[in-house]
Amino acid sequence: MQEVKIYDTTLRDGTQAEDFSLSLEDKVRIAMKLDDLGVHYIEGGWPGSNPKDVEFFREMQNYQLKNANLASFGATHHPTRSAHTDGNLKALLAARTPTVTIFGKTWTVHVREALHTNNERNLEIIRDSLAFLRPEAKTLFYDAEHFFDGFRENPDYALATLEKALEGGADCLVLCDTNGGSLPDFIQEAVGVVRGRFPDVSVGIHAHNDCELSVANSLAAVRAGVVHVQGTINGIGERCGNANLCSIIANLCLKMGVESIPPENLRKLRIVSRYVLELANVPPNRYQPFVGRAAFAHKGGVHISAVEKNPLTYEHIDPALVGNRRRFLISDLSGRSAVKRKAEEFGLRLNKNDPVAMQVLEELKDLEHQGFQFEAAEASFELLINRAMGRARRYFELVGFRVIDHKHSEEKAPTSEATILVKVGGHVEHTASLGDGPVNALDNALRKALEKFYPQLRDMVLSDYKVRVLPGIDGTGARVRVLIESHDQYDHWGTVGVSHDIIEASWQALVDSINYKMYKDEKNGRC
Amino acid sequence: MQEVKIYDTTLRDGTQAEDFSLSLEDKVRIAMKLDDLGVHYIEGGWPGSNPKDVEFFREMQNYQLKNANLASFGATHHPTRSAHTDGNLKALLAARTPTVTIFGKTWTVHVREALHTNNERNLEIIRDSLAFLRPEAKTLFYDAEHFFDGFRENPDYALATLEKALEGGADCLVLCDTNGGSLPDFIQEAVGVVRGRFPDVSVGIHAHNDCELSVANSLAAVRAGVVHVQGTINGIGERCGNANLCSIIANLCLKMGVESIPPENLRKLRIVSRYVLELANVPPNRYQPFVGRAAFAHKGGVHISAVEKNPLTYEHIDPALVGNRRRFLISDLSGRSAVKRKAEEFGLRLNKNDPVAMQVLEELKDLEHQGFQFEAAEASFELLINRAMGRARRYFELVGFRVIDHKHSEEKAPTSEATILVKVGGHVEHTASLGDGPVNALDNALRKALEKFYPQLRDMVLSDYKVRVLPGIDGTGARVRVLIESHDQYDHWGTVGVSHDIIEASWQALVDSINYKMYKDEKNGRC
Repeated sequence: MQEVKIYDTTLRDGTQAEDFSLSLEDKVRIAMKLDDLGVHYIEGGWPGSNPKDVEFFREMQNYQLKNANLASFGATHHPTRSAHTDGNLKALLAARTPTVTIFGKTWTVHVREALHTNNERNLEIIRDSLAFLRPEAKTLFYDAEHFFDGFRENPDYALATLEKALEGGADCLVLCDTNGGSLPDFIQEAVGVVRGRFPDVSVGIHAHNDCELSVANSLAAVRAGVVHVQGTINGIGERCGNANLCSIIANLCLKMGVESIPPENLRKLRIVSRYVLELANVPPNRYQPFVGRAAFAHKGGVHISAVEKNPLTYEHIDPALVGNRRRFLISDLSGRSAVKRKAEEFGLRLNKNDPVAMQVLEELKDLEHQGFQFEAAEASFELLINRAMGRARRYFELVGFRVIDHKHSEEKAPTSEATILVKVGGHVEHTASLGDGPVNALDNALRKALEKFYPQLRDMVLSDYKVRVLPGIDGTGARVRVLIESHDQYDHWGTVGVSHDIIEASWQALVDSINYKMYKDEKNGRC
Repeated sequence: MQEVKIYDTTLRDGTQAEDFSLSLEDKVRIAMKLDDLGVHYIEGGWPGSNPKDVEFFREMQNYQLKNANLASFGATHHPTRSAHTDGNLKALLAARTPTVTIFGKTWTVHVREALHTNNERNLEIIRDSLAFLRPEAKTLFYDAEHFFDGFRENPDYALATLEKALEGGADCLVLCDTNGGSLPDFIQEAVGVVRGRFPDVSVGIHAHNDCELSVANSLAAVRAGVVHVQGTINGIGERCGNANLCSIIANLCLKMGVESIPPENLRKLRIVSRYVLELANVPPNRYQPFVGRAAFAHKGGVHISAVEKNPLTYEHIDPALVGNRRRFLISDLSGRSAVKRKAEEFGLRLNKNDPVAMQVLEELKDLEHQGFQFEAAEASFELLINRAMGRARRYFELVGFRVIDHKHSEEKAPTSEATILVKVGGHVEHTASLGDGPVNALDNALRKALEKFYPQLRDMVLSDYKVRVLPGIDGTGARVRVLIESHDQYDHWGTVGVSHDIIEASWQALVDSINYKMYKDEKNGRC
């Protein structure tokens, strides 16, 4: 069986993405998670260019990796220095990683215009830099920057740079499509030439996604015989990103029969994907292949019944293989058996002949007609079922609220104030709060009123707030749907509200969110 | 030169995506934009399954497309009926489109489990359905659903279904990777077999992105000789989406030398990509290849100086070719060339030595930093330029407003009331209005105050209202961006507002909308 080593560079090349950054602590946690997934190499940073990366490697001395080798990354030595006097190379060794990866120039345009030297000197620089590192590194990788652009322009020179890297002692020649501009056929052809020239040498691939082909390019290289694939979790990276390891690993294992991470770990893919995004505070792409929320979501009624009979009719793989799950979008559930199935998903037992199921179904139809949508608001749906089953506890009762937005002049932003009157048990609480806008003022006032009775509400955070004007209705009198996403230390949950009035819609979603928090804490014995 | 026809299905298969929906008006506007881009076919909907799609085709009778052919989409006739008695087929013809596309079953598993019939009957169904439509359709396409899964399981049967489609009169055999589970090599091989079997027949490809390979699969099919490529703008679609036409068109044109849309229209790619997302109220993916905000963004200082000397060192294509632009993330771009570029982005000719240009740029940068965005709000941008040029007339002045939302009990919806105080000329107008929600109340009150001075405001209608919560800020204190689309009997125009307070953001967009109406009427001598 063909075997490929996975080299993750989320912590180095991944952090070159716009608006993606990780703290030192985040980096350590992600490294441990990647190790647990079973990748073979974790590129942690560029100690010569970034002081935070020096600290990262120091910190990692305190951790034991069970599968992966840590790699530090850096450039060949400066043209005006020798390997022995180059600070960048020394910084690489100071990182004390078992693996060292060093990149050099393949493309003569870059030798001239970026390195400001000549082709001959570049060849020496490559050989000397690797030879300097060789005795100190357990594994030494050579990243041939812009390999495919260089090979296109001057194949002989491109191959000569690889020759020098081997002379210097490289264990693997990693061919980089640095600008992401190459197509799969060319990648396959060029890898073939390199393998023909150096038949006993390990070759690797490092692709970028500028043509939306980085996964295809990586797989084409594997077909051409590379044994080392570089990429990042979720394909995060500079410009359009690096090759997405989540998709590459899944395709290698499930489609191509190529061994990479331990097959049983494939089920961790989705969790690792989400974990990286959570730490970087980047919203997940729900449409992401294999691991996205919508990757196995079925909408039409025909699809649903077919999938239930034989999942492979509309699913290319079993979602559980990558830790994902099938979803039937609630908006399309049409029968009582559907309500029963959804209730079971929430751990609620409902007989499908139970009048409660009928009632839920009727209510659901009515709410959907009004514009409610439960795909991203499963907490609201669970509360709906609970209410129909007569087991929803009332934690508080609204007597009334008033929200006032007052703009005093053209130049100044308005002030927002909310007053609220709620009953909890026999007690009436009347309070008020300001806010950044009317909904925030109302949220603040409601929490202020309730937190003295329910202190656990302090653990609950609103993590996202989305407003959608419902289609088909014109102008500012339109209906709006508000989706609120909340979390505490244990869970994430989504709730929904719909109204002509954005404040009322927000209120409904806020109230569901608070009720759900209280209900689930009770269910789990946490209050 | 190899030539490929582009078949867009954003309006049909695209709307199968989770959380992506378009109003009838949005669909018409997108169709016109796609026509302007130069795609060859626009699939508008499935009239047999969706009443909204019937209306769309009726509405499109009022529009003249200059490049594209409109296509309606539907299934082969029901197994228990004949083509002549099938409502679905009749609905296709009732749509009165020059192109009709019909899909049928290729995979025996689906023939049995989804269609509940046998292989022989399915072959008849395919032939009869096409033969029924043939005399009425200018162009008749056959989508072979699950072609690649069917071909893998039973190649003879898969080819037999295509044979029947040709007997029925199909102009093109479109091979669909419906579940998105196939790899490029297999796609290329299977297309090769079909072309070998039917050498004189046009073949097409319809790919899905479940393996993150839909662009590669489409390009592999083109290499194998298909002449028709289906996809959606931005790759939106069910599960992980359809093949992304933005990337496919750019790769065909810039990398493969294959003709598709007119080459000069390639520069419209980015605008079309954003337009679709804005209308669907979906946030753009900044990392999207070719057209994303970060697609040509450079971070490192070395990169920046190299790119300035020779852009192709770190850019695989000139971003202007697809209507995008280079961005330098570290060094804040300022200065005159930036002014000129920014002005050009909005199609405005400003002399770069004009101090007005400097002022506009400064203001623009500041507003964009706050979250303003003018791509769908060109009226607001034109007013901004006017103000900078000192030629914005003040039609009214706000003294203040107060919006009150009052909820009296848990059961009842709140009442919304707005009071407003404006000065017009020397006159002070103080009035109040109720509304469906706070923004509607404010809109009503403002119009009531102004219409006695400016009766032409009665001709102005708010046709759309969109709210977007801006990323990166948590919870209900987040900033929101409001886009308002207005029209009168002559024009449509878009305006924008941004604030922590949704009422304030709506107010800004409302005020711009009213000012723009008055300004353009004056400019056109209509008041």
